[in-house]
Amino acid sequence: MNITEKILSKKAGHEVTPGEIIEIPVDLAMSHDGTSPPAIKTFERIAEKVWDPEKIAIIFDHNVPANTIGSAEFQKVCRDFISKQNITKNYIHGEGICHQVVPEMGLVEPGKVIVGADSHTCTYGAFGAFSTGMGATDLAMVWATGKTWFMVPSAIKMEVTGEINQYIAPKDIILNIIGEIGIAGATYKTAEFCGETIENMGVEGRATMCNMAIEMGAKNGIMEPNREVIDYICQRTGKRESELNIVKSDDDAVYEKEMHFDINDLEPQIACPNDVDNVKGISKIEGTSIDQCLIGSCTNGRLSDLKDAAEILEGNSIDDSIRLLILPASREIYQQAIHLGYIDTFINAGAIICNPGCGPCLGGHMGVLSEGESCISTTNRNFKGRMGDPASSVYLSNSKVVAASALTGVITNPKDI
Amino acid sequence: MNITEKILSKKAGHEVTPGEIIEIPVDLAMSHDGTSPPAIKTFERIAEKVWDPEKIAIIFDHNVPANTIGSAEFQKVCRDFISKQNITKNYIHGEGICHQVVPEMGLVEPGKVIVGADSHTCTYGAFGAFSTGMGATDLAMVWATGKTWFMVPSAIKMEVTGEINQYIAPKDIILNIIGEIGIAGATYKTAEFCGETIENMGVEGRATMCNMAIEMGAKNGIMEPNREVIDYICQRTGKRESELNIVKSDDDAVYEKEMHFDINDLEPQIACPNDVDNVKGISKIEGTSIDQCLIGSCTNGRLSDLKDAAEILEGNSIDDSIRLLILPASREIYQQAIHLGYIDTFINAGAIICNPGCGPCLGGHMGVLSEGESCISTTNRNFKGRMGDPASSVYLSNSKVVAASALTGVITNPKDI
Repeated sequence: MNITEKILSKKAGHEVTPGEIIEIPVDLAMSHDGTSPPAIKTFERIAEKVWDPEKIAIIFDHNVPANTIGSAEFQKVCRDFISKQNITKNYIHGEGICHQVVPEMGLVEPGKVIVGADSHTCTYGAFGAFSTGMGATDLAMVWATGKTWFMVPSAIKMEVTGEINQYIAPKDIILNIIGEIGIAGATYKTAEFCGETIENMGVEGRATMCNMAIEMGAKNGIMEPNREVIDYICQRTGKRESELNIVKSDDDAVYEKEMHFDINDLEPQIACPNDVDNVKGISKIEGTSIDQCLIGSCTNGRLSDLKDAAEILEGNSIDDSIRLLILPASREIYQQAIHLGYIDTFINAGAIICNPGCGPCLGGHMGVLSEGESCISTTNRNFKGRMGDPASSVYLSNSKVVAASALTGVITNPKDI
Repeated sequence: MNITEKILSKKAGHEVTPGEIIEIPVDLAMSHDGTSPPAIKTFERIAEKVWDPEKIAIIFDHNVPANTIGSAEFQKVCRDFISKQNITKNYIHGEGICHQVVPEMGLVEPGKVIVGADSHTCTYGAFGAFSTGMGATDLAMVWATGKTWFMVPSAIKMEVTGEINQYIAPKDIILNIIGEIGIAGATYKTAEFCGETIENMGVEGRATMCNMAIEMGAKNGIMEPNREVIDYICQRTGKRESELNIVKSDDDAVYEKEMHFDINDLEPQIACPNDVDNVKGISKIEGTSIDQCLIGSCTNGRLSDLKDAAEILEGNSIDDSIRLLILPASREIYQQAIHLGYIDTFINAGAIICNPGCGPCLGGHMGVLSEGESCISTTNRNFKGRMGDPASSVYLSNSKVVAASALTGVITNPKDI
């Protein structure tokens, strides 16, 4: 069996097979300020008390601080629910983006089943957990019963080999994969990432890759935990390695499909407007004029992303035509970036440092685009109107490309800086 | 003559008298992302080229980064105008709030006439300049002609004596004055602040006081520059003291009214909902429950305000019921606050640090209140619905009171922390 099948089998109490529908208990149910209120509305029609207040996490990240009266009302609804239901795992004071805060707070472990009312909940597969997004109504049922149903996904094995060169990052690998397989290429499948590149990849890069599994339609992305992941989980949860349920795929595990990606000689990848699979090597798109540069999000707002950008921006100034926005993915990362001098570097280069949160990724606030404007961004989606006006454009890349482009005002390969 | 009459007389080329209508040249015309677009719209109907691109300053502060498609469009209109008119004094990359950025950038000098399409333009009276707010249409005329008309205001002399004790700040003095004179008590008058307390007051406290002159209806607030102001201006403008036009009131200057405020034994002052003159000593209002605490704005987002708050918050955590928002008034202040460790202190206490700008002061974004919520804030206005829902409330105070209240969840006198 593969990792996903093993995790689901243990929860189901029998050996599951792809296509089978199972109802299983979940270990954590996550939601944010955007999805909790509709879940609360549904929940209050079907139950009085949540099944287990210790297994629910509520994070404010989408509109923090509240940007409208409506979002302020939404947050009040959440606070009242948290208080009424005694939910202790609440991170509602700007701790950061849910998909960064949940692992930081030690709520993720290998082998766990985590659901979240946010499509990028698949991020936690980076830690060897089965995790997937669901709608707010489904989440309300989880709150009420502690269980949910899944069709067991069949899996695609995605083996990655080769060295990550100095101009690319894990983001380029996942963009390359999505460009090849397409936005619906893994619909309701498990994307199981493996191979030497993945084995050698740090926690943050793994999170970036699993985060974007949903962008090819995958039910979940997952990776076998490596040493760095195990150490991270032990540190964050306070558990010993022997206490963790580290699940690995069997050598004879069955996959619907096996794919191989060699990243030697991969150039920076850009997902061009208006689909995440419209991926081009940077050489085909460099020189395109842009208005805004954004480094942040649950995909690439982590310390390594900020470090990569700081190395390029250090001692330089952004182009006059550009606005550069930096949103650390969490308060912890923001504080680390202060101590490491990255924030100083960004400020000196002319960036605006926003508070940790989702910010402009989904066009909510803090960097909305007007008609005809374009943004190069480390975020995960470039759909029409994603970041503002329907006639605006978003290009997705790694943070090195965003930093290099901020210096020139056009999409720029970091090797040319 | 008093300071204001002397400045206006020099510009008019004759000795002016209160009530007289004069047309005079202006030294600087300031506007921001909220008021520039309507000014541009008017300007483009009446002229082709601005009278002097070196005497125009455009600052983005109200909605930075753009929080809606509409504000993004407004900023695009401004950028196009800046480019077309070759306006070099543009601060559109998150440098901070106009009323802090304009002095920081060396655009203010004693004796100058400064107009701005923002009501708190009266701030620059702290530096011995005549400065006042005007509408966007009036500003368009200034852009076209370099001149504007005023009725020469009569003046109220406001003498302040006594020591600023450790729990109050210049904010309490101006709130005390406004509480006494009322929101229309100085309508179209000059509020000339003097006395030993003002003579000994630093640049930042002076800016706080003149900033709020408009809250009693004053045309302008003004103070005779002291040593600290002169040193600040020389440092910021690169000029020698002998090059400045430092104007002082004559001993026999005529005032419509003279008032005296003794601040010895003044307790922290709170402007209660929903008018700035609804001022009470904190002992009459302490214990009132609040939801949000805000330190920032053109009134009290300066380094001394952050220092005062950091001293109270250091080593402590905010109350669970509270969200604490910190918005440094400028990028320079933000960077200083990082270097001095204040930002670390705020983060450790549980605050959200937003990017420099006006933010939630006017309910635009970054901390909007929902129905029934209340905020204690270092800002300048507490009108009904100012910060969000019409049924929300704003209490105005100094930053020590805001910090103390953040720790307890209720309006708290810093002497009780």
